[in-house]
Amino acid sequence: MDNKLDALFNPCNIAVIGASNNPLKAGYTVIHNLHQIGYPGGVFPVTRSQETILGRKCHVKLSDIKVDIDLVVLGTAAPLIYEIMEDLEIRMKKYNDVKVIACIAADYGETKTAEGIRRQECLIHTAKKYGIRVVGPNCIGVIDNINRVDTTFVETLIPKEMGGCKGGISFISQSGAMAASILMMGASQPASISMNKFVSIGNMADVDCIDLLEYFEADNDTKVIGMYLEGYPDGRRLIETLARIAKKKPVVILKVGRSSVGAQAANSHTGSLAGSDAVYDAAFRQYGIIRAYTIEELMDTLQAFDAMSLPRGNKCFLLTQAGGPGIYCTDAYMDQGNLQFPRVSDETKEELTNLLPPMANVGSPEGYADITAAAGARQHVESLRTILADDNVDCVIFVTVVPTFLPQKELGEKLVELLKEYPEKPVYICIMAGNYVLESRRILETNGIRTFATPSHCVKAAGNMTAYGNFLANRKEEV
Amino acid sequence: MDNKLDALFNPCNIAVIGASNNPLKAGYTVIHNLHQIGYPGGVFPVTRSQETILGRKCHVKLSDIKVDIDLVVLGTAAPLIYEIMEDLEIRMKKYNDVKVIACIAADYGETKTAEGIRRQECLIHTAKKYGIRVVGPNCIGVIDNINRVDTTFVETLIPKEMGGCKGGISFISQSGAMAASILMMGASQPASISMNKFVSIGNMADVDCIDLLEYFEADNDTKVIGMYLEGYPDGRRLIETLARIAKKKPVVILKVGRSSVGAQAANSHTGSLAGSDAVYDAAFRQYGIIRAYTIEELMDTLQAFDAMSLPRGNKCFLLTQAGGPGIYCTDAYMDQGNLQFPRVSDETKEELTNLLPPMANVGSPEGYADITAAAGARQHVESLRTILADDNVDCVIFVTVVPTFLPQKELGEKLVELLKEYPEKPVYICIMAGNYVLESRRILETNGIRTFATPSHCVKAAGNMTAYGNFLANRKEEV
Repeated sequence: MDNKLDALFNPCNIAVIGASNNPLKAGYTVIHNLHQIGYPGGVFPVTRSQETILGRKCHVKLSDIKVDIDLVVLGTAAPLIYEIMEDLEIRMKKYNDVKVIACIAADYGETKTAEGIRRQECLIHTAKKYGIRVVGPNCIGVIDNINRVDTTFVETLIPKEMGGCKGGISFISQSGAMAASILMMGASQPASISMNKFVSIGNMADVDCIDLLEYFEADNDTKVIGMYLEGYPDGRRLIETLARIAKKKPVVILKVGRSSVGAQAANSHTGSLAGSDAVYDAAFRQYGIIRAYTIEELMDTLQAFDAMSLPRGNKCFLLTQAGGPGIYCTDAYMDQGNLQFPRVSDETKEELTNLLPPMANVGSPEGYADITAAAGARQHVESLRTILADDNVDCVIFVTVVPTFLPQKELGEKLVELLKEYPEKPVYICIMAGNYVLESRRILETNGIRTFATPSHCVKAAGNMTAYGNFLANRKEEV
Repeated sequence: MDNKLDALFNPCNIAVIGASNNPLKAGYTVIHNLHQIGYPGGVFPVTRSQETILGRKCHVKLSDIKVDIDLVVLGTAAPLIYEIMEDLEIRMKKYNDVKVIACIAADYGETKTAEGIRRQECLIHTAKKYGIRVVGPNCIGVIDNINRVDTTFVETLIPKEMGGCKGGISFISQSGAMAASILMMGASQPASISMNKFVSIGNMADVDCIDLLEYFEADNDTKVIGMYLEGYPDGRRLIETLARIAKKKPVVILKVGRSSVGAQAANSHTGSLAGSDAVYDAAFRQYGIIRAYTIEELMDTLQAFDAMSLPRGNKCFLLTQAGGPGIYCTDAYMDQGNLQFPRVSDETKEELTNLLPPMANVGSPEGYADITAAAGARQHVESLRTILADDNVDCVIFVTVVPTFLPQKELGEKLVELLKEYPEKPVYICIMAGNYVLESRRILETNGIRTFATPSHCVKAAGNMTAYGNFLANRKEEV
């Protein structure tokens, strides 16, 4: 099947209309980002005002470019849309090559003015005539970290050395600002997160959530789908699509407009009808679609699904290096509601007791151990090993403050070795001391092991993964 | 009144028993930290094994030191406590100078072993005999940023250039690990947070929460009190103390052991009885004591109280630069429950409409405005000024993603200027893009204006400050 959206994520050549030599303009940043991410195809800036941009020869018109162009990034001021579409027609009659337009400019339908709507109609009408798909307008663009495409005008986020990182998260955002924030927050993690595919969908004048959900459904490189959602005109169809996908891969959604006032703000923003929150919520629960309530929960959960296997059950051991953080974590654990403290074997308890400092607390409460600040790196790692080896344990939350006296590098490296031996059991690690523990967190994260900022962040991720694991298991039983 | 605890926060000279030249030992870090923070008094390391540590002459015994020592930091291995106490007696008979001991060593009463309990009894018994107060054992120490004292063995947290920062937060922690984490997380903020006074109370063998609460109650440099609390043997007395203080200054408490399992873990940890959570919760509400549920909420709320005036009422305007983050914030706002969108005057709306890009949303919903990504730095600042000038507004939540094209430095500096003009109205600022917006956040924070990591963090801080403002206002009416 010829899917035109392939050209969005894996274009042979890209034209950037409205290119610029001014680093403060979107028409520059797009070309800069394509260069930074290492896009292997040809980049063709289109502008009257420059000869070259970042070493790329400029063309005055799209129709002047002599090679095949399958993706056009449209960044000019909106009033120019009419002449650009005329020129697109010339090109299509001659080459018939363009498959997708990503319109990153604003001042189209979202303005709700007659002129804005007319511009959007011109864009969509012309594109449809030639079977071209349109992403946007009023979006920040598209990223594909596997094929090395970045048509966004967000500051370059993917350090060159990280560009090849094959994360399995694909993300759809109905808000450009939220998209940009999530990218920048992700890139600010101890080890930057590179999404697999990332699309800001803007006005959804053509390509919409469902097109992309279906694309990600079929995409083998997508392990988990994330979404920032305000609303969708055909809520029933959206839910049906999500429900079908959730049987195969996890979908994590930050659905806003929960409150009536929030829904009103959403309507003013994208014109979305937020829909009845109770209906969405019930459907999400029924169909195993994971709902996140905060940006942090959204990102933590996506990272957890990407980095770890699903737990086999809901038995989650809580291993802490300190009482306070352990108790704090226990409260969050009980709030979460779907995790259960395992009863480990007497052998496991005995092994832990022998291994740990005399003051350690093993099993009070059941399924909980406090190795204490007296525990060295070896005791951190070996106590975790003992717990992972117990059949009663499906996953572990592991909280440590890393005292001054503990070698961070050694701890990080030993944990990496251990976790490779137990790929089937998720371990949610929190090393909680802000920037002071970045060294060990970086060692873990660059080795594909996610870490979390606080114990309650671990709990959210563990709870969501467990809920999805249960959902799949129950489905299997029913079948 | 001679308050011996004065010597804890403002000692004339400090002896460090168990001093060391090994940077991986607590006995080194304490001396290093005292040096780093710029402690102006004399530091006297006590150890047999060294001549000098960090340039300070060592003494073999406490009783050998020839000058007045009012604070003793006790960091030796616990089994040595008996001979140290004998030597303390020699010193007290000769000089009668020591007022406080901060025992940062562990292996005392918290072990619940006969030997541990005996050690603690020896320490407390000897101290009491001479009227010496004891903090700990099993704590991480004490910090006073005004008097430049840091007896902790946590990695140096206060960069020298920040050491003079007179923050008004004083904090009491019933967990050393939580204390260390909170210090390190605070120091990892865009501009490091220096607490005013900070005490990890460990086993509370003598000095306990109430002693310190009362000290902070009377301390003019303490603007807000923070607390990590597991439980207290005399819950009624604790609540009475908190209730009395809350009439004068805000107290923000992360009370754990909320769940029965969490309470069990707390009991295993500090032997604390967590007490009925419902009773604590009701008392907190009744007496205007602010309860935080996460570490983030605790820190955000403390910072907000420290940096801003109390709002006069609950009318909180929501000003956003982008739809998505604004809607997300609105949901959190409605969840919070005690904030109310103000109805601003028609003049304010007209002024905003004239000032902002045509696509801006002013007043849909009421009390909300989206200035859009097209807004420049001037429009950010002037729209905020217009809203602050409206009498219907008590405080503002201000969310911006800072697009690539907006000069961060200019935005930060202009906001600082503006906010100085409206010191009586809190503005909760979120510039949401991880490390990519540290420049503007740092400009704001080094000028005493707190910023928050996400919109929902703003909401928590705004909600808590508003709740406390209401509590005080209602009290006034009753009187």
